[in-house]
Amino acid sequence: MTISMYSTSIPVFKQLLNALSDVLAKAEAHATEKKIDPNALLQARLFPDMFPLVRQVQIAADFAKSVPARLAGAEVPSYEDNEQTFADLHARIKKTLAFIDGLPAEKIDGSEALEIVLRPGTPKEKKLNGQTYLLGYGLPQFFFHVTTAYDILRHNGVEIGKRDFMGAY
Amino acid sequence: MTISMYSTSIPVFKQLLNALSDVLAKAEAHATEKKIDPNALLQARLFPDMFPLVRQVQIAADFAKSVPARLAGAEVPSYEDNEQTFADLHARIKKTLAFIDGLPAEKIDGSEALEIVLRPGTPKEKKLNGQTYLLGYGLPQFFFHVTTAYDILRHNGVEIGKRDFMGAY
Repeated sequence: MTISMYSTSIPVFKQLLNALSDVLAKAEAHATEKKIDPNALLQARLFPDMFPLVRQVQIAADFAKSVPARLAGAEVPSYEDNEQTFADLHARIKKTLAFIDGLPAEKIDGSEALEIVLRPGTPKEKKLNGQTYLLGYGLPQFFFHVTTAYDILRHNGVEIGKRDFMGAY
Repeated sequence: MTISMYSTSIPVFKQLLNALSDVLAKAEAHATEKKIDPNALLQARLFPDMFPLVRQVQIAADFAKSVPARLAGAEVPSYEDNEQTFADLHARIKKTLAFIDGLPAEKIDGSEALEIVLRPGTPKEKKLNGQTYLLGYGLPQFFFHVTTAYDILRHNGVEIGKRDFMGAY
């Protein structure tokens, strides 16, 4: 059991996406129990120029699919960002999990030195090797949005704890 | 350049701790400029039963030192958690960075299968191998607290963006 690009990416994304799904289920149950309009949570933000919960979940799922896909040299599937309900968000997470479950470990392993170009053709273009792309860019971005989704719900009184954020490890 | 336990831990902690330090500097500058009591930010929380900013930073720094130290088989230095000011938090981050900079790569590399016992002797005791301890436990915990520190400041109107959270990669 040696650490590899696969073991550093797919299991982490899966653990946290499954946990996020459970967090969202608790949020929906909370809304139902307290007779809260689900949109009060789905559209909640921590500050006016931050993204609401729905968008945080979409972006987290985007990093979870695009980072390993690019490392594997696979096409990144494009999803529409049209989620509006908790059920939609669960479906988004589910298809993301199915996609990354289908990425073969042998395609991701060995991608340490693969050249990845961020924002190609723009003034902010940046070249990274696969290892930095995963660890210095992809995972921080992913964790940022998963945590912020959690923080939005905590800030709105949903009774979740860090154990829910962490999921099963 | 093969991915390793060292390259998956120390550079990530360093990148995000340095970024957190810059985020805190911007928060302090914001407080000064707007004539806000620094404690209004330092003691801010997203919800009454969540930790305030100071504690989020302390815990983030704790994971950054304890996770690689345990992987390296080194003693985890104990810090007092007596920080009260922005200057104190900068000092806490600085000594954490100095400590992890001193951990030899060769001690952390190869720790994939090292047995780590969480909460030993308690009903919640859990045994993990080094790889799961880092990727499924340590990094998620660390990112949780760094992101929540950032979210507290954003929620309080400090003008920072995701680029500040990410740091230099």
